Amino acid sequence: MSSSLVSASPGEPSETRLWAALMRLAEFVEPGQAGWTRRVFSCAYMESRALVRTMMEEAGLAVTQDPVGNLIGRLGGRDPALPPLVVGSHTDTVSGGGRFDGMVGVVAAIEVARTLATSSISLRRPLWIVDFLGEEPNRFGLSCLGSRAVTGHLTEQHMDLIDDAGLSLGEELRRAGWRPDDLGSARWQGGSLHAYLELHIEQGAQLERAGRQIGIVTAIAGISRARIDIEGRADHAGTTPMELRLDALQAAAEIVLATDAIGRDQEGGEEGVATVGRLLVEPNVTNVIPARAQLGVELRSIAPRWLEQRSRDLELLVDRVARERRLVLTLEWLSTEPPVRCDGRLRRAMGRAASQVGADPFELPSGASHDAAHIARIAPMGMLFIPSRGGRSHCPEEWSEPAEVALGARSLLQTVLDVDAAQL
Amino acid sequence: MSSSLVSASPGEPSETRLWAALMRLAEFVEPGQAGWTRRVFSCAYMESRALVRTMMEEAGLAVTQDPVGNLIGRLGGRDPALPPLVVGSHTDTVSGGGRFDGMVGVVAAIEVARTLATSSISLRRPLWIVDFLGEEPNRFGLSCLGSRAVTGHLTEQHMDLIDDAGLSLGEELRRAGWRPDDLGSARWQGGSLHAYLELHIEQGAQLERAGRQIGIVTAIAGISRARIDIEGRADHAGTTPMELRLDALQAAAEIVLATDAIGRDQEGGEEGVATVGRLLVEPNVTNVIPARAQLGVELRSIAPRWLEQRSRDLELLVDRVARERRLVLTLEWLSTEPPVRCDGRLRRAMGRAASQVGADPFELPSGASHDAAHIARIAPMGMLFIPSRGGRSHCPEEWSEPAEVALGARSLLQTVLDVDAAQL
Repeated sequence: MSSSLVSASPGEPSETRLWAALMRLAEFVEPGQAGWTRRVFSCAYMESRALVRTMMEEAGLAVTQDPVGNLIGRLGGRDPALPPLVVGSHTDTVSGGGRFDGMVGVVAAIEVARTLATSSISLRRPLWIVDFLGEEPNRFGLSCLGSRAVTGHLTEQHMDLIDDAGLSLGEELRRAGWRPDDLGSARWQGGSLHAYLELHIEQGAQLERAGRQIGIVTAIAGISRARIDIEGRADHAGTTPMELRLDALQAAAEIVLATDAIGRDQEGGEEGVATVGRLLVEPNVTNVIPARAQLGVELRSIAPRWLEQRSRDLELLVDRVARERRLVLTLEWLSTEPPVRCDGRLRRAMGRAASQVGADPFELPSGASHDAAHIARIAPMGMLFIPSRGGRSHCPEEWSEPAEVALGARSLLQTVLDVDAAQL
Repeated sequence: MSSSLVSASPGEPSETRLWAALMRLAEFVEPGQAGWTRRVFSCAYMESRALVRTMMEEAGLAVTQDPVGNLIGRLGGRDPALPPLVVGSHTDTVSGGGRFDGMVGVVAAIEVARTLATSSISLRRPLWIVDFLGEEPNRFGLSCLGSRAVTGHLTEQHMDLIDDAGLSLGEELRRAGWRPDDLGSARWQGGSLHAYLELHIEQGAQLERAGRQIGIVTAIAGISRARIDIEGRADHAGTTPMELRLDALQAAAEIVLATDAIGRDQEGGEEGVATVGRLLVEPNVTNVIPARAQLGVELRSIAPRWLEQRSRDLELLVDRVARERRLVLTLEWLSTEPPVRCDGRLRRAMGRAASQVGADPFELPSGASHDAAHIARIAPMGMLFIPSRGGRSHCPEEWSEPAEVALGARSLLQTVLDVDAAQL
């Protein structure tokens, strides 16, 4: 890989256009929801993707939608037979989320493609820009729908996942106009891509604290997600003595506190985080002793051993609480995504690219997962980060400066030019 | 008070008719809700009260509905100028509740009135049978709507209480066809009643454990209900290190466990119970650190000092958690109902009545609150209990045997005859 091949200048991604695109996307929100909420399958999401398609088309891309709703914009290369270079991210949000997580990557990728399409430079290889379907966790309990599909990890069994209303994922995909019966044709074969790149906001505060503008991701944390169900007994809160209660919420509270302690456990020198983000109580009425509770727990680390050991700690905790409180507790692992290391050659290319645009790149791991972690199964994968103010993300306060977004897009463009020319 | 005045036999409450009435009422349930759910203002509740009215009319009562929806059936006495003897309870349920709590008292009171109306015996005084509106806690956060209204403790300010959808209590009363602007005319003046009696299921297991069929309530526990709001900060669960989190659910869990410990504290030799029955988490998504939590807490005891001290313990707890976790916590007392002692002369009359029908009465406090606790402000008040199987209540498993319901009704009839003749 060498920068000598890119001595002709392709022009610059436009900070103004990037910011305008982000703000236009942010107008699509679910009514009555906090922050900028645009969850997969919502009307706001479906409508916003018509805008993404238009943005891709206006950038000079030939746009198709695959059987699971991934939007793919293609720019031809000098040698159409070469495996494509793919750049992607997502445009759905968590409930109460912000305007940058995912969107920055899609908008910047489209701007990079536009810059190339309107310049005199053409890439050797085809360039694909992808807006992956539903990257965030959703009501079917399965994140990264689109990137799972293209790597063959969205299966027919997943189509039977149901939400709280009893609707299945397959039905929802069909209702959206896609073809869940044709999962196979969404698939990209291993080795069929030259490389996969993704620009994303950091969602943490390491860049900000280090005073750096561009992050080069070393590895993406693995995530183990579990659901814990607690079965106690509903009784009258006024007439049932303390010692006769089978209170599901008491057990849940014990697990909430102990999960936090598990997350802080750095025995072995490795680190991770543990979170209980979700707790449902039934019947959830002040004068009834809680009969049932359900917790959503996740463990994250870039260290496989930390994940393994803390998962076992969580299982032992659940067993102990069940025994000591004489309640029925069950733990089910919903997903266990292993940590993923980023490709070393892409990391170096990204580092060079960042330096070329005047940034001082900073290597760091990603605590958040990304579509990139799935694509890494079938292609060399690299990720660029831009700073998140105060490290805030998955909240309305999520923020990156216009200049930071633009610097990210410029780094991405340089990386694309470098990697296009390289043998990986 | 003497039983010599009731030597003429008025006939017997019918076990068959009592049971049939309970089972007919149990047919009115909210669709899609667990157990036998018939909450105040629901369609099921509104429809069920047409049946209650019919039952009253068929028993020979003249039925009216007051401005807040209390159903009142009146049987004339030999001396219409005397203050009435009032017998009542309620027919709404908690969410996921059972078929007996409240309903037993209304159905038995109607059966007692029917027995008197169809016999050759007439009471000296008017007898009023009352189905009080909405005794259980509801979405406006105010229990005992009907019995508060007749004692002048449902105020115009209460009409502005709103539910989660922003509907006010006043609007809801108006929508139901009642007259919240005319609260004053629902009021019964202090001293205007001869006495108030209520038959209820125990909702605890003391009668069952003692092998007794009729309970004579000594006192009704006071209840202090609080709402605790916790304000943390939403952050990405994968990128925010454990030590930088402001996790509202962690603070909530600490309060849940500490509240249980407060309930078990018997320092001073007095007892009570403490419960967190309700916990809401926001945004309640697995991969977002909880930003906010709200707890519904209640303390109950028949000892005023226990309630006072434990309320202060709860306040200190909230302050400490806020300080230690650097979160904003606020505690608001929603209601503080003091304990109420039952009238001694009525207790003795109920004891005699139970013995007369062959039961071995058992004195016990009521951990649950009742409409009776409100009526006690304006009249001598007495309560009879029948057993609850396994002490279960506020759940679908709530159960009392047909013979137990019938024995309760027979005890109530004898008490009515005795108290009617007495000077209190």
